[in-house]
Amino acid sequence: MVSSPKSVIVTGANRGIGLTIVKELVKDSGIKTLIVTARDPKTATDLHSIKDPRIHILPLEVTSDESIDRFVDQVKKIVGDDGLNCLINNAGAAFHYTTNSTPSRSLLTEQFDVNTVSVVILTQKLLPLLRKSASRSTGDHLSISRSAILNISSGLASIADNTFGSTTAVPMLAYAMSKTAINQFTKMLSIDLKKDHILAVCFEPGWIKTNLGGPMAQFTQSKIQEENPQFKQFQLEEAIPTLVETFYKLNESHNGGYFYRDLKPLPY
Amino acid sequence: MVSSPKSVIVTGANRGIGLTIVKELVKDSGIKTLIVTARDPKTATDLHSIKDPRIHILPLEVTSDESIDRFVDQVKKIVGDDGLNCLINNAGAAFHYTTNSTPSRSLLTEQFDVNTVSVVILTQKLLPLLRKSASRSTGDHLSISRSAILNISSGLASIADNTFGSTTAVPMLAYAMSKTAINQFTKMLSIDLKKDHILAVCFEPGWIKTNLGGPMAQFTQSKIQEENPQFKQFQLEEAIPTLVETFYKLNESHNGGYFYRDLKPLPY
Repeated sequence: MVSSPKSVIVTGANRGIGLTIVKELVKDSGIKTLIVTARDPKTATDLHSIKDPRIHILPLEVTSDESIDRFVDQVKKIVGDDGLNCLINNAGAAFHYTTNSTPSRSLLTEQFDVNTVSVVILTQKLLPLLRKSASRSTGDHLSISRSAILNISSGLASIADNTFGSTTAVPMLAYAMSKTAINQFTKMLSIDLKKDHILAVCFEPGWIKTNLGGPMAQFTQSKIQEENPQFKQFQLEEAIPTLVETFYKLNESHNGGYFYRDLKPLPY
Repeated sequence: MVSSPKSVIVTGANRGIGLTIVKELVKDSGIKTLIVTARDPKTATDLHSIKDPRIHILPLEVTSDESIDRFVDQVKKIVGDDGLNCLINNAGAAFHYTTNSTPSRSLLTEQFDVNTVSVVILTQKLLPLLRKSASRSTGDHLSISRSAILNISSGLASIADNTFGSTTAVPMLAYAMSKTAINQFTKMLSIDLKKDHILAVCFEPGWIKTNLGGPMAQFTQSKIQEENPQFKQFQLEEAIPTLVETFYKLNESHNGGYFYRDLKPLPY
Protein backbone atom coordinates (compact mmCIF):
# COMPACT_ATOMS: atom_id res chain seq x y z
CA MET A 1 0.00 0.00 0.00
CA VAL A 2 1.34 3.39 -0.99
CA SER A 3 0.93 6.14 1.56
CA SER A 4 1.53 9.86 1.37
CA PRO A 5 4.31 11.87 2.97
CA LYS A 6 2.70 14.28 5.41
CA SER A 7 5.29 16.96 4.67
CA VAL A 8 7.41 17.67 1.60
CA ILE A 9 9.98 20.33 0.73
CA VAL A 10 10.63 21.20 -2.93
CA THR A 11 13.52 23.62 -3.53
CA GLY A 12 13.76 25.84 -6.61
CA ALA A 13 9.99 25.55 -7.06
CA ASN A 14 9.29 28.86 -8.78
CA ARG A 15 9.52 27.44 -12.30
CA GLY A 16 10.35 24.46 -14.48
CA ILE A 17 10.80 21.03 -12.92
CA GLY A 18 10.31 22.22 -9.33
CA LEU A 19 7.08 24.06 -10.09
CA THR A 20 5.69 21.10 -12.02
CA ILE A 21 6.56 18.71 -9.18
CA VAL A 22 4.58 20.97 -6.83
CA LYS A 23 1.60 20.97 -9.23
CA GLU A 24 1.62 17.16 -9.17
CA LEU A 25 2.06 16.87 -5.40
CA VAL A 26 -0.91 19.13 -4.59
CA LYS A 27 -3.12 16.46 -6.20
CA ASP A 28 -2.26 14.16 -3.26
CA SER A 29 -4.69 15.02 -0.48
CA GLY A 30 -2.62 12.93 1.94
CA ILE A 31 0.07 15.60 1.92
CA LYS A 32 -0.63 18.04 4.74
CA THR A 33 2.29 20.44 4.31
CA LEU A 34 4.04 21.41 1.10
CA ILE A 35 6.98 23.74 1.70
CA VAL A 36 8.19 25.20 -1.55
CA THR A 37 11.10 27.57 -2.02
CA ALA A 38 12.12 30.36 -4.32
CA ARG A 39 15.00 32.80 -4.08
CA ASP A 40 12.47 35.61 -4.20
CA PRO A 41 8.93 34.46 -3.34
CA LYS A 42 7.51 37.85 -4.30
CA THR A 43 8.24 37.16 -7.97
CA ALA A 44 7.15 33.50 -7.86
CA THR A 45 3.80 34.27 -9.45
CA ASP A 46 3.19 30.75 -10.75
CA LEU A 47 3.57 29.34 -7.23
CA HIS A 48 1.20 31.94 -5.77
CA SER A 49 -1.37 31.12 -8.44
CA ILE A 50 -1.72 27.51 -7.20
CA LYS A 51 -3.70 28.75 -4.16
CA ASP A 52 -3.70 25.78 -1.83
CA PRO A 53 -3.68 26.36 1.94
CA ARG A 54 -1.19 23.50 2.43
CA ILE A 55 1.48 25.36 0.43
CA HIS A 56 4.07 27.46 2.29
CA ILE A 57 6.18 29.56 -0.07
CA LEU A 58 9.45 30.32 1.71
CA PRO A 59 12.51 32.26 0.57
CA LEU A 60 15.66 30.18 0.16
CA GLU A 61 18.97 31.07 -1.47
CA VAL A 62 20.79 27.75 -1.22
CA THR A 63 24.21 29.36 -1.64
CA SER A 64 23.71 31.39 1.57
CA ASP A 65 24.19 29.66 4.93
CA GLU A 66 22.23 32.45 6.62
CA SER A 67 19.31 31.91 4.25
CA ILE A 68 19.45 28.15 4.89
CA ASP A 69 19.48 28.70 8.66
CA ARG A 70 16.46 31.00 8.51
CA PHE A 71 14.69 28.51 6.26
CA VAL A 72 15.38 25.54 8.53
CA ASP A 73 14.05 27.49 11.53
CA GLN A 74 10.83 28.20 9.65
CA VAL A 75 10.49 24.56 8.56
CA LYS A 76 10.94 23.43 12.19
CA LYS A 77 8.05 25.62 13.28
CA ILE A 78 5.83 24.41 10.45
CA VAL A 79 6.40 20.65 10.76
CA GLY A 80 6.74 20.56 14.56
CA ASP A 81 7.08 17.20 16.25
CA ASP A 82 6.16 15.26 13.13
CA GLY A 83 9.49 16.15 11.51
CA LEU A 84 9.99 16.29 7.76
CA ASN A 85 9.10 13.35 5.53
CA CYS A 86 10.50 14.27 2.17
CA LEU A 87 13.18 16.67 0.92
CA ILE A 88 13.31 17.16 -2.85
CA ASN A 89 16.59 18.90 -3.74
CA ASN A 90 15.72 20.46 -7.07
CA ALA A 91 17.24 23.97 -6.97
CA GLY A 92 20.19 24.28 -9.33
CA ALA A 93 21.76 26.08 -12.24
CA ALA A 94 23.55 25.12 -15.44
CA PHE A 95 26.48 27.20 -16.62
CA HIS A 96 27.93 26.94 -20.12
CA TYR A 97 31.49 25.56 -19.90
CA THR A 98 33.52 23.33 -22.18
CA THR A 99 37.03 21.91 -22.40
CA ASN A 100 37.83 24.79 -24.75
CA SER A 101 36.26 27.56 -22.65
CA THR A 102 38.51 30.26 -21.26
CA PRO A 103 39.53 28.71 -17.92
CA SER A 104 37.41 30.23 -15.14
CA ARG A 105 37.93 29.21 -11.53
CA SER A 106 35.08 31.47 -10.42
CA LEU A 107 32.56 29.91 -12.80
CA LEU A 108 33.56 26.35 -11.85
CA THR A 109 33.46 27.22 -8.15
CA GLU A 110 30.02 28.80 -8.49
CA GLN A 111 28.70 25.78 -10.41
CA PHE A 112 29.85 23.42 -7.64
CA ASP A 113 28.57 25.81 -4.97
CA VAL A 114 25.02 26.02 -6.37
CA ASN A 115 24.55 22.41 -7.49
CA THR A 116 26.71 20.42 -5.12
CA VAL A 117 27.98 22.12 -1.97
CA SER A 118 24.64 23.83 -1.26
CA VAL A 119 22.78 20.53 -1.56
CA VAL A 120 25.13 18.95 0.98
CA ILE A 121 24.71 21.84 3.44
CA LEU A 122 20.92 22.08 3.15
CA THR A 123 20.51 18.32 3.47
CA GLN A 124 22.78 18.16 6.51
CA LYS A 125 20.86 20.99 8.22
CA LEU A 126 17.53 19.24 7.62
CA LEU A 127 18.75 15.86 8.88
CA PRO A 128 17.42 16.34 12.44
CA LEU A 129 13.91 16.87 11.02
CA LEU A 130 14.26 13.92 8.61
CA ARG A 131 15.48 11.71 11.47
CA LYS A 132 12.55 12.83 13.62
CA SER A 133 9.99 11.69 11.04
CA ALA A 134 11.85 8.43 10.37
CA SER A 135 11.88 7.57 14.08
CA ARG A 136 8.07 7.81 14.27
CA SER A 137 7.77 4.46 12.45
CA THR A 138 9.16 1.08 13.44
CA GLY A 139 10.80 -1.53 11.22
CA ASP A 140 13.37 -1.16 8.46
CA HIS A 141 11.17 -0.11 5.54
CA LEU A 142 12.08 3.01 3.59
CA SER A 143 9.67 5.26 1.72
CA ILE A 144 8.87 8.90 0.97
CA SER A 145 6.05 8.69 3.53
CA ARG A 146 8.58 7.76 6.22
CA SER A 147 11.68 9.87 5.43
CA ALA A 148 13.45 10.52 2.14
CA ILE A 149 15.99 12.70 0.34
CA LEU A 150 15.31 12.87 -3.40
CA ASN A 151 18.03 14.58 -5.42
CA ILE A 152 17.20 15.88 -8.89
CA SER A 153 20.35 14.99 -10.77
CA SER A 154 20.71 14.81 -14.58
CA GLY A 155 21.32 12.29 -17.32
CA LEU A 156 24.49 14.28 -18.00
CA ALA A 157 25.75 13.10 -14.59
CA SER A 158 26.23 9.54 -15.80
CA ILE A 159 29.92 8.89 -16.52
CA ALA A 160 29.27 5.46 -18.02
CA ASP A 161 26.62 6.77 -20.42
CA ASN A 162 28.55 9.89 -21.40
CA THR A 163 29.20 9.69 -25.15
CA PHE A 164 28.97 13.38 -25.97
CA GLY A 165 31.68 15.26 -24.02
CA SER A 166 31.35 19.02 -23.67
CA THR A 167 32.59 20.54 -26.90
CA THR A 168 29.83 19.70 -29.35
CA ALA A 169 26.17 20.47 -28.75
CA VAL A 170 26.00 20.09 -24.95
CA PRO A 171 28.47 22.54 -23.34
CA MET A 172 27.89 21.21 -19.86
CA LEU A 173 31.32 20.20 -18.53
CA ALA A 174 30.94 21.99 -15.20
CA TYR A 175 27.26 21.12 -14.81
CA ALA A 176 27.83 17.42 -15.50
CA MET A 177 30.69 17.27 -12.98
CA SER A 178 28.56 19.01 -10.32
CA LYS A 179 25.74 16.52 -10.80
CA THR A 180 28.06 13.49 -10.91
CA ALA A 181 29.26 14.60 -7.47
CA ILE A 182 25.60 14.70 -6.34
CA ASN A 183 25.19 11.09 -7.43
CA GLN A 184 28.12 10.15 -5.18
CA PHE A 185 26.61 12.23 -2.36
CA THR A 186 23.32 10.36 -2.75
CA LYS A 187 25.10 7.02 -2.56
CA MET A 188 26.98 8.14 0.56
CA LEU A 189 23.73 9.28 2.21
CA SER A 190 22.02 6.00 1.37
CA ILE A 191 24.66 4.11 3.32
CA ASP A 192 25.14 6.59 6.17
CA LEU A 193 21.42 7.08 6.81
CA LYS A 194 20.19 3.52 6.32
CA LYS A 195 20.29 2.87 10.06
CA ASP A 196 18.22 6.04 10.55
CA HIS A 197 15.68 4.71 8.02
CA ILE A 198 16.05 7.63 5.64
CA LEU A 199 15.88 6.83 1.93
CA ALA A 200 18.24 8.60 -0.54
CA VAL A 201 17.74 8.39 -4.30
CA CYS A 202 18.81 10.49 -7.31
CA PHE A 203 16.99 11.03 -10.58
CA GLU A 204 17.50 11.86 -14.22
CA PRO A 205 14.16 13.61 -14.80
CA GLY A 206 14.60 13.65 -18.57
CA TRP A 207 15.84 16.40 -20.81
CA ILE A 208 13.15 18.96 -20.22
CA LYS A 209 12.23 22.03 -22.21
CA THR A 210 13.09 24.51 -19.48
CA ASN A 211 15.38 27.50 -19.15
CA LEU A 212 17.66 26.07 -16.48
CA GLY A 213 19.94 28.95 -15.61
CA GLY A 214 19.58 30.31 -19.11
CA PRO A 215 22.49 28.91 -21.12
CA MET A 216 20.84 25.68 -22.28
CA ALA A 217 18.19 27.86 -23.90
CA GLN A 218 20.54 28.70 -26.74
CA PHE A 219 20.90 25.03 -27.68
CA THR A 220 17.85 24.14 -29.64
CA GLN A 221 16.52 20.64 -29.70
CA SER A 222 17.18 20.42 -33.42
CA LYS A 223 20.85 21.34 -33.08
CA ILE A 224 21.50 18.93 -30.21
CA GLN A 225 19.56 16.09 -31.79
CA GLU A 226 21.42 16.53 -35.05
CA GLU A 227 24.63 15.58 -33.26
CA ASN A 228 23.10 13.32 -30.60
CA PRO A 229 20.11 11.51 -32.08
CA GLN A 230 19.64 9.54 -28.84
CA PHE A 231 18.51 12.69 -27.02
CA LYS A 232 14.89 13.61 -26.87
CA GLN A 233 13.46 16.68 -25.22
CA PHE A 234 10.25 16.44 -23.22
CA GLN A 235 7.61 18.87 -22.14
CA LEU A 236 7.39 19.24 -18.37
CA GLU A 237 3.78 18.10 -18.47
CA GLU A 238 4.82 14.84 -20.15
CA ALA A 239 7.79 14.02 -17.95
CA ILE A 240 7.11 15.21 -14.41
CA PRO A 241 3.90 13.28 -13.63
CA THR A 242 5.84 10.08 -14.33
CA LEU A 243 8.66 11.23 -12.06
CA VAL A 244 6.29 12.03 -9.19
CA GLU A 245 4.50 8.68 -9.59
CA THR A 246 7.93 7.07 -9.27
CA PHE A 247 8.59 8.84 -5.96
CA TYR A 248 5.65 6.96 -4.46
CA LYS A 249 7.02 3.60 -5.63
CA LEU A 250 10.40 3.96 -3.90
CA ASN A 251 11.36 1.48 -1.21
CA GLU A 252 14.49 0.10 0.43
CA SER A 253 15.45 -1.72 -2.79
CA HIS A 254 16.00 1.66 -4.48
CA ASN A 255 18.14 3.20 -1.76
CA GLY A 256 21.25 4.89 -3.20
CA GLY A 257 20.11 4.34 -6.78
CA TYR A 258 20.15 6.58 -9.84
CA PHE A 259 16.99 6.30 -11.91
CA TYR A 260 15.19 7.65 -14.93
CA ARG A 261 11.81 9.15 -14.12
CA ASP A 262 10.18 5.79 -14.87
CA LEU A 263 12.40 4.03 -12.28
CA LYS A 264 14.60 2.39 -14.89
CA PRO A 265 18.15 2.46 -13.46
CA LEU A 266 21.01 4.40 -15.09
CA PRO A 267 24.64 3.35 -14.70
CA TYR A 268 26.68 5.84 -12.69
CA MET B 1 56.39 -1.41 -29.18
CA VAL B 2 56.24 0.79 -26.11
CA SER B 3 57.99 4.10 -26.41
CA SER B 4 58.79 6.78 -23.87
CA PRO B 5 57.18 10.16 -23.45
CA LYS B 6 59.88 12.77 -24.05
CA SER B 7 58.38 15.10 -21.45
CA VAL B 8 56.27 14.44 -18.36
CA ILE B 9 54.76 16.68 -15.67
CA VAL B 10 54.00 15.23 -12.23
CA THR B 11 52.14 17.59 -9.86
CA GLY B 12 52.32 17.26 -6.09
CA ALA B 13 55.61 15.40 -6.42
CA ASN B 14 57.26 16.33 -3.14
CA ARG B 15 56.03 13.25 -1.29
CA GLY B 16 53.86 10.16 -1.38
CA ILE B 17 52.41 8.92 -4.65
CA GLY B 18 53.78 11.82 -6.73
CA LEU B 19 57.33 11.41 -5.42
CA THR B 20 57.26 7.66 -5.98
CA ILE B 21 55.96 8.10 -9.55
CA VAL B 22 58.94 10.40 -10.20
CA LYS B 23 61.35 7.81 -8.76
CA GLU B 24 59.93 5.24 -11.19
CA LEU B 25 59.95 7.55 -14.21
CA VAL B 26 63.62 8.51 -13.81
CA LYS B 27 64.45 4.87 -14.56
CA ASP B 28 63.22 5.42 -18.15
CA SER B 29 66.16 6.88 -20.08
CA GLY B 30 63.81 7.70 -22.96
CA ILE B 31 62.30 10.52 -20.89
CA LYS B 32 64.23 13.70 -21.64
CA THR B 33 62.38 16.16 -19.40
CA LEU B 34 60.69 15.47 -16.09
CA ILE B 35 58.91 18.53 -14.70
CA VAL B 36 57.90 17.94 -11.10
CA THR B 37 56.02 20.36 -8.88
CA ALA B 38 55.80 21.22 -5.22
CA ARG B 39 54.08 24.08 -3.47
CA ASP B 40 57.43 25.02 -1.97
CA PRO B 41 60.37 23.48 -3.84
CA LYS B 42 62.82 24.67 -1.18
CA THR B 43 61.38 22.19 1.31
CA ALA B 44 61.04 19.32 -1.21
CA THR B 45 64.19 17.65 0.03
CA ASP B 46 63.28 14.18 -1.26
CA LEU B 47 62.90 15.54 -4.80
CA HIS B 48 66.23 17.37 -4.60
CA SER B 49 67.93 14.20 -3.42
CA ILE B 50 67.09 12.35 -6.68
CA LYS B 51 69.78 14.37 -8.49
CA ASP B 52 69.02 13.79 -12.15
CA PRO B 53 69.71 16.56 -14.67
CA ARG B 54 66.44 15.83 -16.51
CA ILE B 55 64.40 16.84 -13.44
CA HIS B 56 63.04 20.38 -13.21
CA ILE B 57 61.55 21.13 -9.81
CA LEU B 58 59.06 23.97 -10.23
CA PRO B 59 56.79 25.73 -7.73
CA LEU B 60 53.09 25.19 -8.29
CA GLU B 61 50.14 26.00 -6.03
CA VAL B 62 47.28 24.53 -8.07
CA THR B 63 44.68 26.63 -6.26
CA SER B 64 46.31 29.86 -7.52
CA ASP B 65 45.68 30.96 -11.11
CA GLU B 66 48.75 33.20 -10.94
CA SER B 67 50.92 30.26 -9.86
CA ILE B 68 49.49 28.14 -12.69
CA ASP B 69 50.18 30.88 -15.23
CA ARG B 70 53.80 31.27 -14.08
CA PHE B 71 54.20 27.49 -14.15
CA VAL B 72 52.77 27.12 -17.67
CA ASP B 73 55.13 29.85 -18.92
CA GLN B 74 58.10 27.98 -17.48
CA VAL B 75 56.92 24.69 -18.96
CA LYS B 76 56.58 26.32 -22.40
CA LYS B 77 60.21 27.46 -22.26
CA ILE B 78 61.42 24.04 -21.13
CA VAL B 79 59.56 21.84 -23.65
CA GLY B 80 59.72 24.29 -26.57
CA ASP B 81 58.41 23.17 -29.95
CA ASP B 82 58.11 19.53 -28.87
CA GLY B 83 55.16 20.38 -26.63
CA LEU B 84 54.24 18.29 -23.62
CA ASN B 85 53.66 14.54 -23.86
CA CYS B 86 52.24 13.59 -20.51
CA LEU B 87 50.51 15.46 -17.69
CA ILE B 88 50.06 13.49 -14.47
CA ASN B 89 47.55 15.32 -12.25
CA ASN B 90 48.46 14.00 -8.84
CA ALA B 91 48.37 17.02 -6.49
CA GLY B 92 45.46 16.85 -4.08
CA ALA B 93 44.29 16.83 -0.51
CA ALA B 94 41.85 14.82 1.59
CA PHE B 95 39.74 16.58 4.20
CA HIS B 96 37.84 14.76 6.93
CA TYR B 97 34.09 15.26 6.36
CA THR B 98 31.08 13.05 7.00
CA THR B 99 27.30 13.21 6.75
CA ASN B 100 27.30 14.03 10.47
CA SER B 101 30.04 16.66 10.39
CA THR B 102 29.16 20.22 11.30
CA PRO B 103 28.11 21.62 7.92
CA SER B 104 31.00 23.62 6.43
CA ARG B 105 30.64 25.37 3.10
CA SER B 106 34.23 26.57 3.27
CA LEU B 107 35.67 23.09 3.77
CA LEU B 108 33.56 21.60 0.96
CA THR B 109 34.48 24.49 -1.35
CA GLU B 110 38.17 24.09 -0.57
CA GLN B 111 38.01 20.33 -1.17
CA PHE B 112 36.48 20.85 -4.61
CA ASP B 113 38.90 23.70 -5.32
CA VAL B 114 42.04 21.67 -4.62
CA ASN B 115 41.00 18.31 -6.07
CA THR B 116 38.59 19.21 -8.87
CA VAL B 117 38.49 22.82 -10.03
CA SER B 118 42.29 23.23 -9.96
CA VAL B 119 42.75 20.08 -12.06
CA VAL B 120 40.35 21.44 -14.68
CA ILE B 121 42.13 24.83 -14.82
CA LEU B 122 45.68 23.41 -14.94
CA THR B 123 44.71 20.88 -17.61
CA GLN B 124 42.98 23.51 -19.74
CA LYS B 125 46.01 25.81 -19.54
CA LEU B 126 48.37 23.01 -20.61
CA LEU B 127 46.17 21.92 -23.54
CA PRO B 128 48.05 23.99 -26.14
CA LEU B 129 51.28 22.17 -25.20
CA LEU B 130 49.56 18.76 -25.18
CA ARG B 131 48.02 19.49 -28.58
CA LYS B 132 51.41 20.51 -29.92
CA SER B 133 52.99 17.18 -29.00
CA ALA B 134 50.00 15.21 -30.28
CA SER B 135 50.17 16.93 -33.66
CA ARG B 136 53.77 15.81 -34.16
CA SER B 137 52.57 12.24 -34.90
CA THR B 138 50.20 11.07 -37.60
CA GLY B 139 47.43 8.48 -37.32
CA ASP B 140 44.82 7.97 -34.62
CA HIS B 141 46.83 6.06 -32.01
CA LEU B 142 46.86 7.31 -28.43
CA SER B 143 49.65 6.81 -25.91
CA ILE B 144 51.62 8.55 -23.18
CA SER B 145 54.48 8.97 -25.65
CA ARG B 146 52.18 10.95 -27.96
CA SER B 147 50.01 13.04 -25.61
CA ALA B 148 48.16 12.09 -22.43
CA ILE B 149 46.39 13.40 -19.35
CA LEU B 150 46.57 10.93 -16.46
CA ASN B 151 44.41 11.83 -13.47
CA ILE B 152 45.18 10.24 -10.12
CA SER B 153 41.69 9.62 -8.77
CA SER B 154 40.78 7.24 -5.94
CA GLY B 155 38.91 4.03 -5.32
CA LEU B 156 36.65 6.12 -3.12
CA ALA B 157 35.51 7.92 -6.30
CA SER B 158 33.60 4.88 -7.54
CA ILE B 159 29.87 5.34 -6.89
CA ALA B 160 28.99 1.81 -7.97
CA ASP B 161 31.60 0.23 -5.67
CA ASN B 162 30.82 2.47 -2.69
CA THR B 163 29.66 0.23 0.13
CA PHE B 164 31.11 2.16 3.06
CA GLY B 165 29.58 5.66 3.11
CA SER B 166 31.29 8.35 5.15
CA THR B 167 30.27 7.83 8.74
CA THR B 168 32.15 4.70 9.73
CA ALA B 169 35.88 4.29 9.28
CA VAL B 170 36.43 6.33 6.09
CA PRO B 171 35.29 9.93 6.73
CA MET B 172 35.79 10.97 3.13
CA LEU B 173 32.45 12.36 1.94
CA ALA B 174 33.91 15.55 0.44
CA TYR B 175 37.04 13.83 -0.90
CA ALA B 176 35.06 11.07 -2.61
CA MET B 177 32.72 13.59 -4.25
CA SER B 178 35.66 15.67 -5.49
CA LYS B 179 37.30 12.62 -7.07
CA THR B 180 34.03 11.33 -8.56
CA ALA B 181 33.80 14.67 -10.35
CA ILE B 182 37.36 14.11 -11.66
CA ASN B 183 36.26 10.80 -13.14
CA GLN B 184 33.52 12.64 -15.06
CA PHE B 185 36.08 15.28 -16.12
CA THR B 186 38.36 12.54 -17.45
CA LYS B 187 35.51 11.01 -19.45
CA MET B 188 34.61 14.43 -20.88
CA LEU B 189 38.26 15.05 -21.86
CA SER B 190 38.51 11.64 -23.51
CA ILE B 191 35.64 12.54 -25.84
CA ASP B 192 36.51 16.19 -26.40
CA LEU B 193 40.21 15.57 -27.09
CA LYS B 194 39.98 12.37 -29.11
CA LYS B 195 40.14 14.28 -32.38
CA ASP B 196 43.27 16.02 -31.06
CA HIS B 197 44.78 12.59 -30.29
CA ILE B 198 45.19 13.25 -26.59
CA LEU B 199 44.55 10.31 -24.25
CA ALA B 200 42.69 10.85 -20.94
CA VAL B 201 42.55 8.17 -18.24
CA CYS B 202 41.94 8.13 -14.47
CA PHE B 203 43.34 5.79 -11.86
CA GLU B 204 42.69 4.27 -8.49
CA PRO B 205 46.32 3.88 -7.37
CA GLY B 206 45.43 1.71 -4.39
CA TRP B 207 45.01 2.68 -0.80
CA ILE B 208 48.50 3.82 -0.01
CA LYS B 209 50.17 4.34 3.33
CA THR B 210 50.69 8.07 2.91
CA ASN B 211 49.73 11.18 4.83
CA LEU B 212 47.49 12.69 2.18
CA GLY B 213 46.56 16.08 3.60
CA GLY B 214 46.88 14.72 7.11
CA PRO B 215 43.42 13.57 8.18
CA MET B 216 43.61 9.99 6.86
CA ALA B 217 46.60 9.52 9.11
CA GLN B 218 44.35 9.21 12.14
CA PHE B 219 42.55 6.21 10.65
CA THR B 220 44.78 3.27 11.19
CA GLN B 221 44.73 0.33 8.86
CA SER B 222 43.52 -1.92 11.66
CA LYS B 223 40.52 0.27 12.46
CA ILE B 224 39.46 0.64 8.84
CA GLN B 225 39.97 -3.01 8.03
CA GLU B 226 37.99 -4.07 11.05
CA GLU B 227 34.93 -2.43 9.51
CA ASN B 228 35.86 -2.89 5.86
CA PRO B 229 37.74 -6.16 5.46
CA GLN B 230 37.89 -5.70 1.67
CA PHE B 231 40.32 -2.80 2.06
CA LYS B 232 44.03 -3.40 2.01
CA GLN B 233 46.68 -0.78 2.46
CA PHE B 234 49.81 -0.87 0.32
CA GLN B 235 53.27 0.51 0.63
CA LEU B 236 54.15 3.04 -2.06
CA GLU B 237 57.02 0.86 -3.18
CA GLU B 238 54.63 -2.05 -3.78
CA ALA B 239 51.90 -0.15 -5.60
CA ILE B 240 53.46 2.63 -7.65
CA PRO B 241 55.82 0.62 -9.88
CA THR B 242 52.75 -1.32 -11.10
CA LEU B 243 50.89 1.95 -11.74
CA VAL B 244 53.76 3.41 -13.76
CA GLU B 245 54.11 0.20 -15.80
CA THR B 246 50.41 0.54 -16.58
CA PHE B 247 50.91 4.09 -17.92
CA TYR B 248 53.15 2.65 -20.66
CA LYS B 249 50.49 0.10 -21.68
CA LEU B 250 47.75 2.67 -22.32
CA ASN B 251 46.33 3.01 -25.81
CA GLU B 252 43.14 4.22 -27.52
CA SER B 253 41.16 1.31 -26.04
CA HIS B 254 41.66 2.78 -22.56
CA ASN B 255 40.62 6.33 -23.39
CA GLY B 256 38.21 7.74 -20.80
CA GLY B 257 38.57 4.70 -18.56
CA TYR B 258 38.93 4.34 -14.79
CA PHE B 259 41.45 1.69 -13.79
CA TYR B 260 43.19 0.06 -10.88
CA ARG B 261 46.93 0.39 -11.02
CA ASP B 262 47.12 -3.01 -12.76
CA LEU B 263 44.79 -1.78 -15.57
CA LYS B 264 41.81 -3.74 -14.29
CA PRO B 265 38.75 -1.50 -14.87
CA LEU B 266 36.61 -0.14 -12.02
CA PRO B 267 32.93 0.72 -12.47
CA TYR B 268 32.22 4.43 -12.19
